Amino acid sequence: MDERELKRVVAGVVGREAILDDCAVYPLGEESNLLATTDMLHESTDFPAGISNREIGWMSAAVTLSDIAAMGGDPALVLLAVGLDRTSRLQDILIGARECCEAYGARLAGGDLDAHGELTLVSSGIGFADRPVRRSGARPGDLVGIVGVPGRAQAALEGYDMFRGYLCTPKPRVREGRALAAAGVTSMMDVSDGLLLSLDDMRLASGLGYAIESEKIPPLSGVPAGIARRFALEGGGDFGLLFTFPPGVILPPLPELFVIGTVTREPSLLVDGKEVVISGYQHHWD
Amino acid sequence: MDERELKRVVAGVVGREAILDDCAVYPLGEESNLLATTDMLHESTDFPAGISNREIGWMSAAVTLSDIAAMGGDPALVLLAVGLDRTSRLQDILIGARECCEAYGARLAGGDLDAHGELTLVSSGIGFADRPVRRSGARPGDLVGIVGVPGRAQAALEGYDMFRGYLCTPKPRVREGRALAAAGVTSMMDVSDGLLLSLDDMRLASGLGYAIESEKIPPLSGVPAGIARRFALEGGGDFGLLFTFPPGVILPPLPELFVIGTVTREPSLLVDGKEVVISGYQHHWD
Repeated sequence: MDERELKRVVAGVVGREAILDDCAVYPLGEESNLLATTDMLHESTDFPAGISNREIGWMSAAVTLSDIAAMGGDPALVLLAVGLDRTSRLQDILIGARECCEAYGARLAGGDLDAHGELTLVSSGIGFADRPVRRSGARPGDLVGIVGVPGRAQAALEGYDMFRGYLCTPKPRVREGRALAAAGVTSMMDVSDGLLLSLDDMRLASGLGYAIESEKIPPLSGVPAGIARRFALEGGGDFGLLFTFPPGVILPPLPELFVIGTVTREPSLLVDGKEVVISGYQHHWD
Repeated sequence: MDERELKRVVAGVVGREAILDDCAVYPLGEESNLLATTDMLHESTDFPAGISNREIGWMSAAVTLSDIAAMGGDPALVLLAVGLDRTSRLQDILIGARECCEAYGARLAGGDLDAHGELTLVSSGIGFADRPVRRSGARPGDLVGIVGVPGRAQAALEGYDMFRGYLCTPKPRVREGRALAAAGVTSMMDVSDGLLLSLDDMRLASGLGYAIESEKIPPLSGVPAGIARRFALEGGGDFGLLFTFPPGVILPPLPELFVIGTVTREPSLLVDGKEVVISGYQHHWD
């Protein structure tokens, strides 16, 4: 089974809504919603070679803050459960996580500690949003936008060291997510698992199609074009934002914002007019 | 280093408050507080031999709901991060977790899924409390109470099968926690790690002492007295409540409620008048 098949198992027990968005949404009243999310990372699959403990801590908070950003929320609290293999790593991991939280207005407020054979970090985040932006809200004719240049984390993973920061200390797009939500984008998510896989997740949520033009994705300087295209479409770990908006909406002036395609009624995923088979990062079990 | 030493590392980075209570507390307004907690469980240390996947799921939700109960809160949401070793386990784990959430008024609202060499579950819970009851609030002269008969989970772990349910499907004391908070208890926590270790945690939080009388702890029927005493004082996994209250407070009529001691100004831990060395469940690293 791969991750998508398992998601169907999850949907069967927990409900389809539980697999559709970056965060669970809990209404707090007329105009406020609580957002809650959790992310598991562990050494063998999530932390690149050479990453420091402090960067590991940063990354573990960033992935959760990115989920809150992806719904247009304000992060408030992060909890970190640490399955620790060596005690000497703990302090730097926590310092990194705290630094990331503080950089984005959240508080590292507690967690849990356990002895574990493999370093395993689970960060859980809580935020608030007046109007959470879901993955499902696109309408045919909407435009598709991204914030952040996709592929840089994958490039770093494959040896392009100038992009190392994007891989090891990803920047959750909290300010950008809020600004896009306030501007009236119709759907949003983070692209942690790669652009194509994220578009496919949006397709699953909305029942609509997405047609993007690869030439509108900015190139990765210093990477050969063919390789850069693969990084941009399939590479994970960037934690940019993917969103849709009606043509009439005026987008906020954000750096690294690019309009790359359109939403279609036909529920297929097209790149440069050709239907694509989904790849990108997925967990696999034998 | 053992867990206590590591907690000092955590306190140094995240702040002392982060290690004192069962949940992080986030004020939502004048009269409402959000409670947030996370708990990591994994196969080699937390799941007893012979436990079913459904029971594992139940337990993973129960430990987090118990943390919310321990502060007198109403649970609302649970998220479950699953580090899965075999895909065939997932459905029953989720069903068990959902059943436990539903039994206590919470919603299993989402989570994360990862491939992992060892089954690892991290449940994160969110609840609400008008007036969260902390571990630190006791005053000298308060009485010490418990809800639940301590030692039953440990007895099950050591072969007394009639107590198996207490070990494998622990019941978070949500209703009891709310009732005690409403009655005006001064401090509270759950006794997941054993009675003595929990009393020591309270001592750390309040700076006061706790003197208990072992004869006031109800016996475990079918277990020899000497062994039962060890189970009751040192055994973990019961998820009862430990609390303090001024003598004038009228406690609610709860089943399995026992008054077992007093709070003292001198910050020592006494059982039957003798100072005790702390044992009980602790993680250890080499």
